[in-house]
Amino acid sequence: MFKAGIYHRPESEDVTLLSENTVIIRIKTALNDIEKITLFYGDPYIISADEPAISKKLIKKQHDDIYDYWELKLEQKTKRLAYAFLLEDYHGETVYYADQQFYQLDAHVIEDGGKFFKLPYFHLIDANIGPQWVKETVWYQIFPERFNNGDINNDPDEKLPWNSKIAPKPDSFYGGDLEGIIKKLDYLVDLGINGLYLTPIFKGPSNHKYDTSDYYEVDTDFGDKATLKILIDEAHKRNMRVMLDAVFNHIGDQSPIWQDVIKKGTQSRYADWFHINHFPVVVDSKITDEEFSRNPSYDTFAFTPHMPKWKTSNPEVQDYLISVGEYWVKEFNIDDWRLDVANEVDHHFWRKFSTRMRQIKPDIYILGEIWHTAQPWLDGSQFDGVMNYAYMQHIKDFFLQNKQTSMEFINRLTHELRLYSDTTNQMMFNLLDSHDTARIKTVAGNDKFVKQLLMFMFMQPGTPDIYYGTELGMTGGGDPDNRKPMPWQSVDTENGMYPVTKAIIKLRRQYAEIFANGSLLLTPIRDGIILKRQFGKKTIMGIFSRQNTLSIEDVTEVKVLFGKEDVTNKQLAPQSSFVYLTE
Amino acid sequence: MFKAGIYHRPESEDVTLLSENTVIIRIKTALNDIEKITLFYGDPYIISADEPAISKKLIKKQHDDIYDYWELKLEQKTKRLAYAFLLEDYHGETVYYADQQFYQLDAHVIEDGGKFFKLPYFHLIDANIGPQWVKETVWYQIFPERFNNGDINNDPDEKLPWNSKIAPKPDSFYGGDLEGIIKKLDYLVDLGINGLYLTPIFKGPSNHKYDTSDYYEVDTDFGDKATLKILIDEAHKRNMRVMLDAVFNHIGDQSPIWQDVIKKGTQSRYADWFHINHFPVVVDSKITDEEFSRNPSYDTFAFTPHMPKWKTSNPEVQDYLISVGEYWVKEFNIDDWRLDVANEVDHHFWRKFSTRMRQIKPDIYILGEIWHTAQPWLDGSQFDGVMNYAYMQHIKDFFLQNKQTSMEFINRLTHELRLYSDTTNQMMFNLLDSHDTARIKTVAGNDKFVKQLLMFMFMQPGTPDIYYGTELGMTGGGDPDNRKPMPWQSVDTENGMYPVTKAIIKLRRQYAEIFANGSLLLTPIRDGIILKRQFGKKTIMGIFSRQNTLSIEDVTEVKVLFGKEDVTNKQLAPQSSFVYLTE
Repeated sequence: MFKAGIYHRPESEDVTLLSENTVIIRIKTALNDIEKITLFYGDPYIISADEPAISKKLIKKQHDDIYDYWELKLEQKTKRLAYAFLLEDYHGETVYYADQQFYQLDAHVIEDGGKFFKLPYFHLIDANIGPQWVKETVWYQIFPERFNNGDINNDPDEKLPWNSKIAPKPDSFYGGDLEGIIKKLDYLVDLGINGLYLTPIFKGPSNHKYDTSDYYEVDTDFGDKATLKILIDEAHKRNMRVMLDAVFNHIGDQSPIWQDVIKKGTQSRYADWFHINHFPVVVDSKITDEEFSRNPSYDTFAFTPHMPKWKTSNPEVQDYLISVGEYWVKEFNIDDWRLDVANEVDHHFWRKFSTRMRQIKPDIYILGEIWHTAQPWLDGSQFDGVMNYAYMQHIKDFFLQNKQTSMEFINRLTHELRLYSDTTNQMMFNLLDSHDTARIKTVAGNDKFVKQLLMFMFMQPGTPDIYYGTELGMTGGGDPDNRKPMPWQSVDTENGMYPVTKAIIKLRRQYAEIFANGSLLLTPIRDGIILKRQFGKKTIMGIFSRQNTLSIEDVTEVKVLFGKEDVTNKQLAPQSSFVYLTE
Repeated sequence: MFKAGIYHRPESEDVTLLSENTVIIRIKTALNDIEKITLFYGDPYIISADEPAISKKLIKKQHDDIYDYWELKLEQKTKRLAYAFLLEDYHGETVYYADQQFYQLDAHVIEDGGKFFKLPYFHLIDANIGPQWVKETVWYQIFPERFNNGDINNDPDEKLPWNSKIAPKPDSFYGGDLEGIIKKLDYLVDLGINGLYLTPIFKGPSNHKYDTSDYYEVDTDFGDKATLKILIDEAHKRNMRVMLDAVFNHIGDQSPIWQDVIKKGTQSRYADWFHINHFPVVVDSKITDEEFSRNPSYDTFAFTPHMPKWKTSNPEVQDYLISVGEYWVKEFNIDDWRLDVANEVDHHFWRKFSTRMRQIKPDIYILGEIWHTAQPWLDGSQFDGVMNYAYMQHIKDFFLQNKQTSMEFINRLTHELRLYSDTTNQMMFNLLDSHDTARIKTVAGNDKFVKQLLMFMFMQPGTPDIYYGTELGMTGGGDPDNRKPMPWQSVDTENGMYPVTKAIIKLRRQYAEIFANGSLLLTPIRDGIILKRQFGKKTIMGIFSRQNTLSIEDVTEVKVLFGKEDVTNKQLAPQSSFVYLTE
């Protein structure tokens, strides 16, 4: 038995509280090492010789190339649980595994819960159960400067013509604004969108506004507060939630707060609001790239001297930034916060922030920008989900690079999914691209792949997001090429992407219950994947062919929901997908 | 290579922040599987082909029977870290291990930090670095009803004679009080104590007061607030800290708050302050043991209907209990809180509580009562340490039961120590016994063992605690036998325990720097253990003989600090210990 591969930890993703009395227990063991696992459990104050722990078998639910993953859901009326695992390997070796590690087999183990793992009390307040509406939401990310120019009166002086074909420069302006978004709300309703994610709209000198200079003002390039109110009201009338983007890792150096620090130094009332390593506040004078300074006298976002880092451990800063968060929720009724560079801000701050936001809006969705493994932020005390770049990258790699086998791909996805509880996975923000990546059309090379990737993404656990223009086949490489103005002209011309995107969204929303809550089964087939989501008696199955023609031998009686080709010939052309429903 | 046994997780006990720029990285691998581990690291915004990650070797620091434990301390000026491990096994197989799991060897890995583990920013506010004075403190636990009767005017009507030889009953009263503690402060100073831990003193009907009926009153059995003020002032004058015991998991059912719920039911303003499953609030009428009811209409501590469980997810309850915490710190200048049944209260509450306490007293020590593995409470946001029963049990098992080999014992201790970061281990509250266990003298059987166990405990990382009367050789089985009145008469008679306890305390305090911060090395010898603590150029070494005579062959030039026998004969009698210092 490979004991070093046996791993379970209470109060981690291995234990998911679903209700006051229901919990899912998971454990992982080295691949193909363990044949059978039994959980012995009971109330810690009850287990005794008179009333020993009772037992239930775990199910080997998944595996990747390293681990087998086991799972058991159980009810516990008393809301307290003591438990130990009895593991048996393929050679018949048996061992107990509990809080005090491993024990040899002994009948008395189950009569003494003292050494068991403990869930001392089932506290829903500590569970990572996010707002349930998120599971039925399809998001649309808007970069306001480039989406639509609805009001030419607020246009920047030096604006470029609205040409979707020419790459913008880092400092280009086009005149997109909030009024422009309002005018396109019905377009988005038609597409099927019910969640808007706007990159920053607060005052800031750049076109992207990630260099906030006033957190309490809408940038005049985009309009004013009255227009924002209308936008939010109109979105709400259309059952659309609105998520704004808050940059609490750093401030823009044009902010009067930061300018006060530069001017007054240690005498500024904001002198301790930033990570200043020594006064006076200066940037290395010899820098050649004004976005890169290796040794400014203060900490910054990355090495960007224009973005001084907030000292969020200072209670004054906490109060200031949390008040910003409160202001837009309370006064403008925004629904959600997306939090920029969230991984570089301290947990203490996020806990305080999230607690306050949930007090004033209990069903708020709090989304962190984190690109790496993010369990420490997803423990129920901070974010509901993170931008799921890590998971989506595996999907892009598989479909576009043709390097991995189907089994390797499934191993990658399984590994990612098992980093989190199922309730967390349901809250992840799935996206193929954003203002921070190349556009999926450019990465994929053709619409056929984009459609397939969208379909695959929309069938995943997590809440799907479309970057503005994907539905119109927009292209673009890395920043700033991925931020071109929206090609409105192509809506009315022949555009194959729009109807397919709309159909995919419709499917997702129509069967949201299954996609949100259903189990996920991934089956490898040569040059493709069968993906099954099952909830109750309903199953939705997708068959995805990669670069080569795919033979389907697993599919018998199915009802075509999406895709026009004839499924009865049991052949799928390259880069095509079918989705079926059985009830 | 046994990949399933390779385990590292950022923002866990595997990563310890020591300062704004210093971090300890740990990783565990299956025992004897990996020969060499190299860390590749750099700033996540710097790592590139031009400036690839730099490398440093990890040290195989310890092992137990399952894992090898590796460690590396490093400085990172930019306060941000991206890192990957390069592992090489004994067969020459090599692999990279990082955030996206395992990679085959590829020179380009170290040029792309994208897939590395991340410490996004070194936030001291999230680090688990407790108050440093704790490391130099020796605690003394007092059960006030049984320590000393200083004022006969506040004695309960039906008090028993102060007889230390007869077991108390669960509801016995003896008349111990705060005045009695004040009168014995100089006794405690003489013993070397500089931290007092008092079990609850707030109003409650029982002798133990874990059934609080008024959190804002000192129980009249024990005195009044004026006396408490004097006690704390007098303790502080003697450089002694005072820790009180707060019961925030449950209330005593005699409390007016709970009585209001019983009386008014859903109409009580406190109706939602508890976990009430259905109204009216009733206890199963058929119960035979009034301390045990399987189905009361509300949740309780254990199955004790007299202790209704607080609903700490209710913000009103949070405010109420946190105000209690604030009151005694602010108004009475108590130094620390010991938190009863802390594992059954939600994390959200503890974070709020600890944040508030640290705001008003930055060097407060917050100690949770948790008997099992406690990482989820020791992440820096809640407690500094927990009552270290789990660790101490291994020590008692080894010295008293003679079942484990020295190596097995070391494996157990190493496993326990590696559950936490070193900074957490320094804050653990080490104890051989308490009001919740049998007394160590009764468990050990004789003074010789008690002295040895004390010496061994005092040499551990963590802050040592003595249960009142241990220094006078008190005996006692489980509750209530472990709560006998203090045998003051034996102070003046021949008592071998007192001078030895005093000497052990003196040694610990004299070399607190080494015991607090030093490395710990445990070496197995037949029938014994060599324990080395090293800090800078100073080493303190203890040699502990178990049940049999021990031969010492490892010790050459030493200076006897403690123990009277002659070390030159290189033989240690059973159950004896020597401690040496080399500089």
